[in-house]
Amino acid sequence: MDLKNLNSPTLILDVDICKLNIKRMTTKARKKGLKFRPHFKTHQSAHIAEWIRQEGVESCTVSSVKMAGYFASHGWNDILIAFPVNIREAEKLNELGNKIKIQVLVYSVEALKLLSQKVDTPIGLKIELDLGNHRSGLEVNQHDEINELLRLIESGTNFEFTGFYAHAGHTYAARSKAEVIEIYDDITSQLKSLKAQYAHEPGFSITIGDTPGCTLAEDFEPIEEISPGNFIFYDSMQVNIGSCSFEDIAVVVACPVVGKNPDRNELLIHGGAVHFSKEILKDEDGTEHFGKLAIPTESGWEGQFPGTYLKAISQEHGIVHFPNDIINRFHIGDMVYIYPAHSCLTANLMKSYFTTGGEVIADGPAISI
Amino acid sequence: MDLKNLNSPTLILDVDICKLNIKRMTTKARKKGLKFRPHFKTHQSAHIAEWIRQEGVESCTVSSVKMAGYFASHGWNDILIAFPVNIREAEKLNELGNKIKIQVLVYSVEALKLLSQKVDTPIGLKIELDLGNHRSGLEVNQHDEINELLRLIESGTNFEFTGFYAHAGHTYAARSKAEVIEIYDDITSQLKSLKAQYAHEPGFSITIGDTPGCTLAEDFEPIEEISPGNFIFYDSMQVNIGSCSFEDIAVVVACPVVGKNPDRNELLIHGGAVHFSKEILKDEDGTEHFGKLAIPTESGWEGQFPGTYLKAISQEHGIVHFPNDIINRFHIGDMVYIYPAHSCLTANLMKSYFTTGGEVIADGPAISI
Repeated sequence: MDLKNLNSPTLILDVDICKLNIKRMTTKARKKGLKFRPHFKTHQSAHIAEWIRQEGVESCTVSSVKMAGYFASHGWNDILIAFPVNIREAEKLNELGNKIKIQVLVYSVEALKLLSQKVDTPIGLKIELDLGNHRSGLEVNQHDEINELLRLIESGTNFEFTGFYAHAGHTYAARSKAEVIEIYDDITSQLKSLKAQYAHEPGFSITIGDTPGCTLAEDFEPIEEISPGNFIFYDSMQVNIGSCSFEDIAVVVACPVVGKNPDRNELLIHGGAVHFSKEILKDEDGTEHFGKLAIPTESGWEGQFPGTYLKAISQEHGIVHFPNDIINRFHIGDMVYIYPAHSCLTANLMKSYFTTGGEVIADGPAISI
Repeated sequence: MDLKNLNSPTLILDVDICKLNIKRMTTKARKKGLKFRPHFKTHQSAHIAEWIRQEGVESCTVSSVKMAGYFASHGWNDILIAFPVNIREAEKLNELGNKIKIQVLVYSVEALKLLSQKVDTPIGLKIELDLGNHRSGLEVNQHDEINELLRLIESGTNFEFTGFYAHAGHTYAARSKAEVIEIYDDITSQLKSLKAQYAHEPGFSITIGDTPGCTLAEDFEPIEEISPGNFIFYDSMQVNIGSCSFEDIAVVVACPVVGKNPDRNELLIHGGAVHFSKEILKDEDGTEHFGKLAIPTESGWEGQFPGTYLKAISQEHGIVHFPNDIINRFHIGDMVYIYPAHSCLTANLMKSYFTTGGEVIADGPAISI
């Protein structure tokens, strides 16, 4: 099938851009001497994961036990579940731990004590750190808590300490390479003090994973392993942060034009919250939007239509803002291509990828009971 | 299975509340002499649709051709696709039109002309009106455009004019019954002038559908048919509008507690944007949140924990705010119940329902290519 024959909202994947993004990040990790454990929550596809494996990558990161099960069933046997362990899923962790090498995060003594009563297979534990993101994890100077966790891990029959982990999600508030680097200077400084304290612990290592930092930072010392996810597609949010340009974004949502309201500078499209999710971005000039418009070409798209954006979305409707000179290029029945605000959430909703080469990749796991 | 055995994020449906919501709206429609064509985009489940059919309802509303196909295959043979017709899907409309009674919306002369070249089965057309929502549709006084549409419908071989349709989505900005009624006073006034102009047209009727209005308004004249959807579950958004109380909300998302940060008054849960979507609400006091916490009971939940809310979400993480006196009631490994901000988007993501009676309803259609 051809791009021209699409009739309803469709997630299109440019395989060349995607593979270039993979190549660029694997190369950077290799050059910096960093282990690479990419996060698969962005694409959630075993098919796309194979493109990463072809670059020599053998370990991955996921965000749920369910996702770990999916990738374990597709030949991934070294998986980090980068989520504070959910002790209610201990049985599923035991099943996984019997088959593959599995790691989870801990930062709570309470959770670890409960886990120790339930785990009966080898499981790797990383202590989660909060380096400024304030979502989860311990601060590097909470030595009492870290020591208590280390003691409990050591005394647990099936536990293995595999190092420290932090998601430096506060880089998402940055709006330039300089700001991301400033955050990384702070992070690496915190981690150096952590290393001075705990480098002697068997299993000590540091993993960090956020696309802005992994893309833009140059100095990773003392980090040993990186686990970014979004870099494989990028999105409008990453453009706003400064991690990439529109040319690096590997996915767009193709949406049919169903109405024109030129008096309001609006096109109405089939494309809403069930396709994009409702991540809202704020540009430097204050414009709030749910994504930006790509310029369609014969074989895909290139760059951004200046001044255009997805202005509002409801469940299935989208309202696109166009400047006067561009709106007249579009007609009812055309397809517009939209760089999503947040490609992870968009891919999770769309589930299937239609490639610029006309292939359908439809193997992503569903999020359900 | 029992509620107590849930281990991962799960959408729980209280069947009694849901059936009461159905009963209440069908009764109201009957008492007001309104035809009832409920919107199925909220539940997207043929199983739940049967509960509505049991109340004597035979026609429904959907938001996409795909959803129409799903419900057509489950015995619904009178479906309104309440979306401006996507001419790229004309072939699918023809397939549907051969099997069941189908209606779509039009408000663009351009779209209708294109449609007339492609449709080869009987299709009902409602002219979409914009009564103040400013998403799509014509204003009631755009007589030239309305007349042109009527002329084109009349001259189309397979077209049948079936009336006017409006989604009064601007009621979602209301924050009290009085405000909703004020909007409905304005809407019905506009529609009376429309009726004065077009009542003589064969097929004339008026359909309107928004849960705040259909729940709270008392005077519907000259509306003949209503098509609300969200009322079947309601949600935190509808509480903010004033359409319902927390006791009327039929769904919660059960989320495992994976961390406690009492110094920040936060619980960390497994429950994020892939479960809730990212609809954000603003309370009267300025608090922004993604949902409110329900008080769990032996058999389900009742009412709201005052002062609690889902403060932040990322892909799979949720941060719940709790006042000091409540946070200590929760422990790692507990489940918290959250009334979603927007139940339509949450149900669309979760796909499956786990009922308070322990039944799994897993027949909702996926949104994909």
